[in-house]
Formats: sequence, structure tokens, C-alpha cells
Amino acid sequence: MVNVAILGFGTVGSGVAEVLAKNADHIDQKVETPVRLKYILDVRDFPDSPFGDKVVHDFSIIENDPTVDIVVETIGGATVALDFTRRALTAGKSVVSSNKELVAEHGHELLQLAAEKGVSYLFEASVGGGIPILRPLSQCLAANELTEVCGILNGTTNYILTRMIRSGLTFEAALKEAQANGYAEKDPTADVEGHDACRKICILAAIAFGRHVYPRQVPTEGISGVTLADVAYAESCNRKIKLLGRAVKQDDGRICAYVAPHLVDGEAPLAGVEDVFNAIMVKGDAIGDVMFYGRGAGKLPTASAVVADVMDAARHIRSRKRIEWGPGGDDVAVGPEKMAFRWYVRALGTAEDARAVPGASLLSRPGAPADEVAFLTSPMTRAQLDGALGALVPQSVFRVLE
Amino acid sequence: MVNVAILGFGTVGSGVAEVLAKNADHIDQKVETPVRLKYILDVRDFPDSPFGDKVVHDFSIIENDPTVDIVVETIGGATVALDFTRRALTAGKSVVSSNKELVAEHGHELLQLAAEKGVSYLFEASVGGGIPILRPLSQCLAANELTEVCGILNGTTNYILTRMIRSGLTFEAALKEAQANGYAEKDPTADVEGHDACRKICILAAIAFGRHVYPRQVPTEGISGVTLADVAYAESCNRKIKLLGRAVKQDDGRICAYVAPHLVDGEAPLAGVEDVFNAIMVKGDAIGDVMFYGRGAGKLPTASAVVADVMDAARHIRSRKRIEWGPGGDDVAVGPEKMAFRWYVRALGTAEDARAVPGASLLSRPGAPADEVAFLTSPMTRAQLDGALGALVPQSVFRVLE
Repeated sequence: MVNVAILGFGTVGSGVAEVLAKNADHIDQKVETPVRLKYILDVRDFPDSPFGDKVVHDFSIIENDPTVDIVVETIGGATVALDFTRRALTAGKSVVSSNKELVAEHGHELLQLAAEKGVSYLFEASVGGGIPILRPLSQCLAANELTEVCGILNGTTNYILTRMIRSGLTFEAALKEAQANGYAEKDPTADVEGHDACRKICILAAIAFGRHVYPRQVPTEGISGVTLADVAYAESCNRKIKLLGRAVKQDDGRICAYVAPHLVDGEAPLAGVEDVFNAIMVKGDAIGDVMFYGRGAGKLPTASAVVADVMDAARHIRSRKRIEWGPGGDDVAVGPEKMAFRWYVRALGTAEDARAVPGASLLSRPGAPADEVAFLTSPMTRAQLDGALGALVPQSVFRVLE
Repeated sequence: MVNVAILGFGTVGSGVAEVLAKNADHIDQKVETPVRLKYILDVRDFPDSPFGDKVVHDFSIIENDPTVDIVVETIGGATVALDFTRRALTAGKSVVSSNKELVAEHGHELLQLAAEKGVSYLFEASVGGGIPILRPLSQCLAANELTEVCGILNGTTNYILTRMIRSGLTFEAALKEAQANGYAEKDPTADVEGHDACRKICILAAIAFGRHVYPRQVPTEGISGVTLADVAYAESCNRKIKLLGRAVKQDDGRICAYVAPHLVDGEAPLAGVEDVFNAIMVKGDAIGDVMFYGRGAGKLPTASAVVADVMDAARHIRSRKRIEWGPGGDDVAVGPEKMAFRWYVRALGTAEDARAVPGASLLSRPGAPADEVAFLTSPMTRAQLDGALGALVPQSVFRVLE
């Protein structure tokens, strides 16, 4: 018998309770012992929930109950969740989390603590919702020297961009629609400005390259600056605008990670990833390109990833599952300033000035104002680009994914 | 220290030796003990190979060497490979294989034997080359009740179809080109007639649904009957022809598995999978659709999947990795005869006869002969379709994936 406590009875937490109950037979059979929900920690009561009798309000009940083997942390944030996770691990309980903020900020420390205590800290659901990605990265691709992880990591922004591209909605209109459909929060900042994608690329980079990368080390740009003019220019050269999180291993061993909108080739697999779907592309020396695709969010997909981790932790209750990575530091991560990219530029200025930019290939769109130019460049750093723009006044500057 | 023996020094076997040598530091660090290649079994000698000094010709040397922990079987086929696999497992050695034929025919028996002996039998490389799919299926998606697995499982046929669709080559010309590029064997039967895809869908079905499915239980149709006329009609309704292996859980718990060309919606993720790439779509009750994409074959991708399994077996040298499924039988698998599909039909006959088929939506293509008709139907079984064709003489009959 394995006993589970859920911390936080919100969307994901209640989904976990549902999946545990609904697929109990299947789960018990796979784990070869009953997996039972014993407690739900929340500040609220849920008298109408079928799980209402399991609700407690004091974490120390869970912490001090030696029969609780696995704690599911679906609180979110990095304050209370950090405290409870530390205390649960210290008490010798495995912890399963969907909390990307906590893992991105404190993953190294919490994995170390889990290792010391001989328990597991697992967080498959923190990236890509229900898409299996962290375990394949750490296990199945283990024989590869990985060189890059790159993906569409946020469903909200991908939905907004898809609506702009397919239906010609403005950013503002597409955001409103996403909010009306429940795909975006009332305060959409974390999604729209790329912070959510930033946390996820930190976690992916750590697993792929073995060192902690902190969100503050990752230059992050969202999609609020993407206009329908940019969408039209991208289409004119058979490309689509996608918000990507990228982590690229540099020749000196450091990790270059950043989040920004990119122009992606229309035939590339990432270009076909639409609506709220996510996809993560991994490059390895032996494997070439591998892509993982699915729903990156949502109650049941995320809950099913959490429950798969619970099952894995339950099977390894006396022999911790090994995920780990080394500490972060200023020598670990670098910004993309020194990397050369092809650039897409939309600017105020003349075609003559645009043609003076190295490798400039001019783009056109119907209805463009007379003083607007747009073009793709040859590969160069951002500083080289800024130097080459001359009298042009840039309105949008995005990288081209090659 | 973990010692490895490779059986069969062909493309995959030599790739495994290369990856083990090239990434030795990385591998030893991840496994936390040195992983060393001790023997290569082959009938030939390889005096010019850097691994030539490891070659032996007698399997009993490996079988009787108690220091050999892991045997890599890359011989192929189900005769000698079966004998050696049984003997290696019986001798208490874990076995890692890329041999889809052996797993599809004898997987249940060999997994049982491995379980009895407390060792691992792993075969990630047998499906999808280097794409991580078997482990995510058995572990990450464990909390889901899976309902379907469906994929482009054979790179050779996908290359041929891509060349037909994109460049208008006939099947014969595309096959010749694939052979010239090394993507198809001199005798292409196993690929072109779908036998390779059949073995892979058997393995996927067993892992997804927990029971052995034998290749003889899986009706299998290849692509040699696909014509440029079919490609053109598919394009006229924004669809692409893809060879799919499918396994669908039926309401009565049985598994319906088959291999056949399908018309796939041009916007669906599987439609964008081109050339020698493979992709596997998995449907689960909680997760929805998840897709895994990458190179399905090739020396290094396949070798990297084998080496990842070697690393996994090495880490669990005293505690077997658990994959297992129940026995097969006549009650386990059913053919697709009772399932209803929308159909694509190209036939000799009149438009009047075509319009008499339930739900018929007529298609057209430039240059079609006067006595040719093509159409999509509403959903029905194959027997219902045959009854509805009347005087029409079918030339091509494919299912539509929905």
C-alpha cells in the first residue's frame, strides 16, 4: 500500500485526485500495490467534493504521518510550495510536482535534498503538460550528446499566434478570445511575456545539459510586439511566427538559452504545431532531430503526467529514481548576444537603406505603408545587425529559425 | 564495471560499438560505473576495425563468461537470434535488442524468461529507430487508459510516398531512387508490403494494451498498389496518402490491429511527416493525442536507442527493469472487418454508379480517363462498401483517417 497526499486542490490537484480514482484498478495493477489518496491539503473545505473527507488544513499532519509515502505538490509558486517540498523530502517522502516555477528556481537544491534522503523528486508535468519529455530526455536519449532543445512551450501564446495567422485577428483580439475560451488567465502576463516558456526552457536545459540554468539568466521576449504586418511578411516567405524557448550548447560547453518569437520555415515540423498544442524538438549527435508533440496544458493531461510520476515513485519507494543535474552559476549560462542568426526586420525607412543590410532579401505585403520596409538578413549577431541598420527605424526584429 | 557483448557486427551492431566508444565518458558518468565492450560475436573477422580484437565466433564464450552482464542482440531474424537470446537470459544476462521480428514473434516468452531470471529484456530500438516511444508508452503514459496507437512506422515507404506526392515519381521510380540512396533494400518486400510496419505495430499494441499481438493476426497491406492517380485524388481533397500501422482498443477489450495505406487530412500532424521520418501518435483518455517524431532508422539513431537501453540495463543490473505484457491468443486480436471507416475508392465505372454509394463525395483530377471515378464514402465496414459498389470495378480502396 502506498499513500499519497495532494497539496493544493486547484485545477491540477483535483485532476490528480480524479485520475487516481478513475484509473485505480489499472494503476494498482501496474504498480503491483494499492495506491491510495489519504490527504488533500488546502486552505478551503470542499464539502461537495467526493474527496471532501480527505481535506486537511495543516501540513504538519501530512509531514508527521509516516504512512504517507508520496506528496503531490500542485500549489504553484516558490514560497509555500518551497517550504512544504523541503519539509516533505526531509521527512523522507517522495515529492511529485507540476510546479515549473519552483523547479526552475530551486530544482538543483531540491534534487540534492531528495538524493540525500534517498527519495524521488519528479516533475514530468512541469514541462509540456502531459507530453512525456523529461523522462525521454534523461533516459531514452541518454546515449546522445545533446546539442539543442527548442520548443513551442506555451499553449496560450501558440493559440494567440495561430488565431492571428489563420484568421487575421489582431494580438489584442486573439488574446481576448483566448481569455474567453479559458486558454489565457485574466492577467496574461506570465504567458504573453514569455515567463512561463522561460521557466520551462530552464528545466529542459538542466536535464539536457546537466547544469542548473536560472530564469534570470535567460533573456525573455514575449509576443505582445507581434503584429499582423509581421504575420503577413512571414507568410510572404512561407514562414510562420512562433514563440520558441531555445537552449543551445556552445562550443565552450556553456548553455545559451533564451525565449523569443522566431520565423519558422513553413515546412518544418514545428510550423505545423497549432492552437494550444506544444512541441519540443531535441537534437542529439547520434539521433538527429526528435520531436515530442501534444497538449501542453489542461487539467487531465497535466494530471495524467503527475499520476505517471506518482506510479513511478511508488514502484521505486525504496530505491529513489535518479534525476539530477549540477549547480548553476555565472559560468554556466550565456545570453544569445554572441550567436549569429538570420534576422527578420520590419522598419521605417527606404528600400535603399534596407538593401544596404548584409544579405538583405526584401519582403512585401499588400497594403504596406510607403515608409515601411521588411527583409531577412544573412547570419549575424544582434550587435552587427544594429550596426547595419543605419537610418532604418526598426519596428519588429525577430530571429529566423534554421 | 559492466561488460557488454554485441551479437552481430552489421550496421546496427557496429553503430553500437561506435556510440559506446565515442560517448564513453558521458556514458560512464551517467551509469556511475565503466561500461565496456568485451566481445563482438560474428561469423566474420574484422581485422581492419578498431574493435577487431574483440571478435569471437563462438557464442558459448559469451554465454559462459560470468563477467558479461549485458548482451546486445543485433543479429535480426527469429532463428539464431532467438536461440542466443534465450541462452543469454537463461545465463542471467540482460539482453538489449533492435530485432523487431523476434520481439513481435516471441516477446511475451522472452519477457517471461527475463522476469524469471531477474534480468532485463529491452528493445526500444525495435520501433521507431532512435525515437523514444516504448519507454514513454510504458512509463510516462502509464496513468492513461490508452485507446489507440497509430503511426508512420516505416521510413522506406514514407520516403517513396513523399517522392510520389512531392515530385510526381511513379511508385517504381521512387522505389528505384530509394534503393539508390540506400533507403530501401535490394529486396524491398519487407518494407514495401508492410511486413516491417506490421511487426512494429504488434510491439506497440502489446505495450499499449498489455497483451501479445502476433504478426499473423494483423491484416497487412503495403503501398505497391498506390498510384499517382490516387495521389492526385487525395491532393484534390487536401489529403495525403500515408502507410499507417494502427492498433485500436475495441469496446469488448480486444485489439484491432492492421497495416494499410490511408488518406490523412493535410492539416493533421501525421501528414507533415515526410521522407524517411517516422511518427507515432498515441491517444489516451486523460492525455488526448501525443505524437513522437524522428528518424525511424539509420545506423546512429538506432544505435543510440540500443545504447540508452544498455545504460538503463546497466543501472538496474541487480534489479530488472520491468516491461511485460500478457500472452497472445485468438481472443486478443481482431481484424478491422467489423470497424466502420470512411473509404476512398477509385474505380472503373460511371459517376451515376459512384453517386449511388452512401455518402459519396466525388473527386476529380486533371487527365482522368472517361471511365474512371473516384470518391469518398460515409463510414461503413468493408463488407458494406463491397455491397454498395454495384457495377463499379474498384482499382484502389483505402481508408480515410479521421
